Amino acid sequence: MITLYTAPGTCGLASHIALEDAGAEYTIVKIDFKARQQSSPDYLKLNPKGRVPAMVTDRGILTETPALLAYIAQSFPAANLAPQHDPYAFARAQAFNQYLCTSLHVAHAHRMRGHRWADDEATIEGMRRAVPRTVGECWDAIEHTMFAGPWAMGDDYTICDPYLFTLAQWMEADSIDPARFPKIADHTRRMLERASVRKVLAANAG
Amino acid sequence: MITLYTAPGTCGLASHIALEDAGAEYTIVKIDFKARQQSSPDYLKLNPKGRVPAMVTDRGILTETPALLAYIAQSFPAANLAPQHDPYAFARAQAFNQYLCTSLHVAHAHRMRGHRWADDEATIEGMRRAVPRTVGECWDAIEHTMFAGPWAMGDDYTICDPYLFTLAQWMEADSIDPARFPKIADHTRRMLERASVRKVLAANAG
Repeated sequence: MITLYTAPGTCGLASHIALEDAGAEYTIVKIDFKARQQSSPDYLKLNPKGRVPAMVTDRGILTETPALLAYIAQSFPAANLAPQHDPYAFARAQAFNQYLCTSLHVAHAHRMRGHRWADDEATIEGMRRAVPRTVGECWDAIEHTMFAGPWAMGDDYTICDPYLFTLAQWMEADSIDPARFPKIADHTRRMLERASVRKVLAANAG
Repeated sequence: MITLYTAPGTCGLASHIALEDAGAEYTIVKIDFKARQQSSPDYLKLNPKGRVPAMVTDRGILTETPALLAYIAQSFPAANLAPQHDPYAFARAQAFNQYLCTSLHVAHAHRMRGHRWADDEATIEGMRRAVPRTVGECWDAIEHTMFAGPWAMGDDYTICDPYLFTLAQWMEADSIDPARFPKIADHTRRMLERASVRKVLAANAG
């Protein structure tokens, strides 16, 4: 049994969708960011990083979205969510998710989480100003050099797709026009047709 | 045959050590950062991200250090560099490397690569000022909650160790006193006793 600690509007959505894709049995626990529950003593005991997502398994806790996604793919091989028996293809998928995490998500986080990398308000505001450029550059790279199509890695739906879909939700809030990225917009549209995605979005809306 | 494109002083060192640990046949190509070779048309054709490391395999190119390290472990299973048949233990190792990449390396990069997240000199300087705090917080988390000992993940040497060793080299340049982190200092000392590490450091010094 898996318990996913997540919060609406965060990258935890990617692991939530992947669990649904995998046919896993799981429970969702929503962490209340407005009440700063991610920094509460109880949550910090569970996940000292004070962030979501965190996944509790029978063996212990796991964190970091790319690691969670690979864990889901490897734990539910019948769902065929990653080319796990082909080290090269698996590394390509890992690298894609790694870029989403380390480049795209990090650039995005400079809009709302600037205190992670600066101590004064002027610097935090300066970082915020650059977000449309820096996040836009990441989307340029994804649209033009990384996205294989029709799914992120090519013909097969993988753990890269729910993660890409999740981060694409943040484009407009980062002042980026989705029309600049037609492949990503098409990907989002096709993700929204999937039963797993619709079920998870409905659960998060409730 | 594997060709690793890397540059002295970069995180490419982690994959270089792992290749040596794995007993792989490989060639190193050093990219000259002073000549901005990473932005040259030839290199961008190879790796559009314009960064190192990049690894050329018989199948194609791979990027992103955590993905390269997992690829090396999976391609040379006899070297036993990751618990790859145990999804939970593998995810723990992946999450460790993920943290090094997304939190520690990113915080460090705000000292020298501020233009990635800001457009004006005052903001870049503001980010630089915060580096001793932000990088220090990452090392606190590693020393006190993540590092299992004697190796990063516990009793077994894994792909997490060369990556940890590599980033620990940057501590003093980030104005952080290594004496604050005795477990990491001990880890560095034991890494320096390994034949693979000594061979790779000698090759890089040459």
